Amino acid sequence: MNTQEVANKVVELTRKQAWKEALDTLYSKDIVSVESQAMGGGSPESRGIDAVRGKTDWWINNMQVHSVKVNGPFVAHDRFVVEYDVDATDKNSKQRMQMSEVGVYTVKDGKIAREEFLPHTGKEK
Amino acid sequence: MNTQEVANKVVELTRKQAWKEALDTLYSKDIVSVESQAMGGGSPESRGIDAVRGKTDWWINNMQVHSVKVNGPFVAHDRFVVEYDVDATDKNSKQRMQMSEVGVYTVKDGKIAREEFLPHTGKEK
Repeated sequence: MNTQEVANKVVELTRKQAWKEALDTLYSKDIVSVESQAMGGGSPESRGIDAVRGKTDWWINNMQVHSVKVNGPFVAHDRFVVEYDVDATDKNSKQRMQMSEVGVYTVKDGKIAREEFLPHTGKEK
Repeated sequence: MNTQEVANKVVELTRKQAWKEALDTLYSKDIVSVESQAMGGGSPESRGIDAVRGKTDWWINNMQVHSVKVNGPFVAHDRFVVEYDVDATDKNSKQRMQMSEVGVYTVKDGKIAREEFLPHTGKEK
């Protein structure tokens, strides 16, 4: 798949919240995944498909997702960007939160080789 | 300035359409600027502040901008993303167009060292 096709598939699967199908079909086994902040004091960078599976499992087990709004993809060359607006409740703390972030993805050999997540930090939305 | 401060300034100046002030204050002289498609058959990549000034002059001289809606910034580490929705008319062809794109910016030593522009290619917006 080229960058546009991978990007379209990410949008399609995240709209369905089919996180595991996305991991199984679109990600390089050597994926590098970068969060804005480390979860639990570790590195913000995860390396390898198993580490990213771990993050996805954590998300599915810990968050009750009310809605995911997906805007994009924005595509050029080997890069694409998808904007996510997520409304979810942390199952443990019961805290409900609205998160707006973008994913910046780099495609290599038809697979996602790198992803970075950047939260919206502006005053207005 | 750190990444967040540079990002805030880009949002502030593009909301004012102060393109030249942005170039003068926020850009590295060695800026690499990447469009999704080459303008006029050249390379999509421009190198150096003078080349980027040329693109900005072309934009100011050729486009009548009706509105620029700016969403962001999205910020993490040395990277930030800004979403632009531009409504503009090409002064030569008189064609009015609505463009949605993101800029992906990389900050180095307090200046924008790289920018990439990715157009919205999704069916829905």
